[in-house]
Amino acid sequence: MSRNIGYATPDKNTPLAPFAFDRREVGPEDVRIDIAYCGVCHSDVHQARDEFGGALATLWPCLPGHEIAGTVAEVGSEVTRYAVGDRVGVGCLVYWGDESQRGVSEEQYQNPPAIFTYNGQDPDTGDVTLGGYSDEIVVNEHFVLRIPDAIPLEQAAPLLCAGVTTWSPLAHWNIGPGSVVAVAGLGGLGHLAVQLAKARGADRVIALTTSPDKADAVRALGADEVLDMTDEDAVEAHASSIDFVLSTIPTPFDMKPYLSLIRHDGALVTVGMLEPIHEEGIDFGFVSMNRITIAGSLIGSIAETQEVLDFAAEHGIAAEVKVIPVQQVNEAFDEMVANDIRFRFVIDNSTLDADRDGAADLPASQ
Amino acid sequence: MSRNIGYATPDKNTPLAPFAFDRREVGPEDVRIDIAYCGVCHSDVHQARDEFGGALATLWPCLPGHEIAGTVAEVGSEVTRYAVGDRVGVGCLVYWGDESQRGVSEEQYQNPPAIFTYNGQDPDTGDVTLGGYSDEIVVNEHFVLRIPDAIPLEQAAPLLCAGVTTWSPLAHWNIGPGSVVAVAGLGGLGHLAVQLAKARGADRVIALTTSPDKADAVRALGADEVLDMTDEDAVEAHASSIDFVLSTIPTPFDMKPYLSLIRHDGALVTVGMLEPIHEEGIDFGFVSMNRITIAGSLIGSIAETQEVLDFAAEHGIAAEVKVIPVQQVNEAFDEMVANDIRFRFVIDNSTLDADRDGAADLPASQ
Repeated sequence: MSRNIGYATPDKNTPLAPFAFDRREVGPEDVRIDIAYCGVCHSDVHQARDEFGGALATLWPCLPGHEIAGTVAEVGSEVTRYAVGDRVGVGCLVYWGDESQRGVSEEQYQNPPAIFTYNGQDPDTGDVTLGGYSDEIVVNEHFVLRIPDAIPLEQAAPLLCAGVTTWSPLAHWNIGPGSVVAVAGLGGLGHLAVQLAKARGADRVIALTTSPDKADAVRALGADEVLDMTDEDAVEAHASSIDFVLSTIPTPFDMKPYLSLIRHDGALVTVGMLEPIHEEGIDFGFVSMNRITIAGSLIGSIAETQEVLDFAAEHGIAAEVKVIPVQQVNEAFDEMVANDIRFRFVIDNSTLDADRDGAADLPASQ
Repeated sequence: MSRNIGYATPDKNTPLAPFAFDRREVGPEDVRIDIAYCGVCHSDVHQARDEFGGALATLWPCLPGHEIAGTVAEVGSEVTRYAVGDRVGVGCLVYWGDESQRGVSEEQYQNPPAIFTYNGQDPDTGDVTLGGYSDEIVVNEHFVLRIPDAIPLEQAAPLLCAGVTTWSPLAHWNIGPGSVVAVAGLGGLGHLAVQLAKARGADRVIALTTSPDKADAVRALGADEVLDMTDEDAVEAHASSIDFVLSTIPTPFDMKPYLSLIRHDGALVTVGMLEPIHEEGIDFGFVSMNRITIAGSLIGSIAETQEVLDFAAEHGIAAEVKVIPVQQVNEAFDEMVANDIRFRFVIDNSTLDADRDGAADLPASQ
């Protein structure tokens, strides 16, 4: 097996660049995947630049990517679910937090938590896990997803993180017929959430945005209405009318206007913000007077990831993607930070070949 | 009928003093109650001093009291549920928000909300409603509760606000066998919440306090354990071990240490805080990683108020009360603000008689 190649960085101040390294050998339960495409998630930017801190502080080197789509190249001796050539994906998780968790239903909420596809610690070697900005990946078959034939691989990739991250709370809170749903933030996660909520049968899906120029595009995705959150009169006119606000806003924000939309016993669930709340961002008088719940939700389980892939195929839901060569990934990072983009950048991993000759060895895990 | 007398204040800077006034005549659905006791709730202090603001800004004059226990003195022509001499109570609510709400199950969450016992607006006269620091009250029978014979009236009074305010979320979130519950704040609400959670069959009830000198008293009420929230090691040792934290803390606080105690899919529900959250008081990273929900709950419905009275009688649950003459109510207010008291002050309303002669007329509603 030739050496692997991927785009990585040894520290938070250096742009991603090509490095050569070796994946582990294919074990009895493992699947080796030729990666065709990898989505570029906002988390990739935060992680590569070590902007999370705390439990999510970056391990080095950092080789991002957890929206991985490709085909099976090799299977281990005990693999039963996949064969060479199958269209498959890998999302945010690559292994159980420990062996006792085999068979649990929500891998991401266990203690210790499941191993992340990148920026995790490999349970065997102790090395940092390396993600999908690379030519191949080797993953236990339990964490491999089947990509339905109806979805092009490049459109399937964003479903593996952005898709399941919004699917999981919609499913957990039983959003469907009878629900009036709002989706806040209309980027990679939000534009999928609008489609998923609508296809789940919600009575009404309202897109909440501070960028009303997105209105036409969001309506085209199925939103029944677009509410400009900068228009106080419009917000007031929607007071106490929504059952479920799914927030994909990635940074601390004033929740009060969003909470004002929620009716008695409704909920706001945030999936994008992993930080302390904005100062005075919640008025518990209002929350109490309407028995509103506020919650957070983290990515999704492996079962839910398969669910969202199958559901998307069945309902013709697709991510809007802009395929780029891996050599443009640093520019994509900058554009994601600078602009409020609605589509998902997806790397065409075949473009890694151009960097194969002469790539430096990836530094050892620190 | 002689004039009524009660302790009221015309503005936020004046102590409560005796005033004479007339309650409305007993209408067909009304019950007139001779008030024997009235609990002194922390809200009474805030309201008399106009400290809430917003939707709860004080209407003048302010005659507080919504933990009212007494006996029926007169019933209207259409009253079916009560007879003269019955032991009854009135809690936080005295009428529907509008007539269309007759028969709804959660009066406090309707729009418009149900009329508060004091600091509400009487739907007939437009005058401010006047509470239980008085000799009598006239209330529609739907809002009158039956006090079981097993509970002394002075001990029943605090159940009508403090009791139902903690009962309602325990019931709504189905707390009982299988639940590990923590109660934060061990004042008038908290000391009832500990007893109610235990009697509902929770596996374990943990009292959370920053006043560890209360530990023995709280254990005597049935707490299985007292956790000193100022002891970081003890807090750490209880990480992710509790299903439901019921917070009765009345002012904004840093929720992070309380949230750290909660396990996956658990909840923190606040019943005492009607204000914006403390800056950075919630870390949504932690909340998301454990899919924790945070909610608020407001008092309780009339049906729930009857439930908690009946439940308390059945399980021998009683508020710890300190009965005072009404002439000491201003001192009680000061003590409640200055000290972290665990019992409930309850006014002996028979002491109003001493002020009957020569009381000034209550100013008209503003």
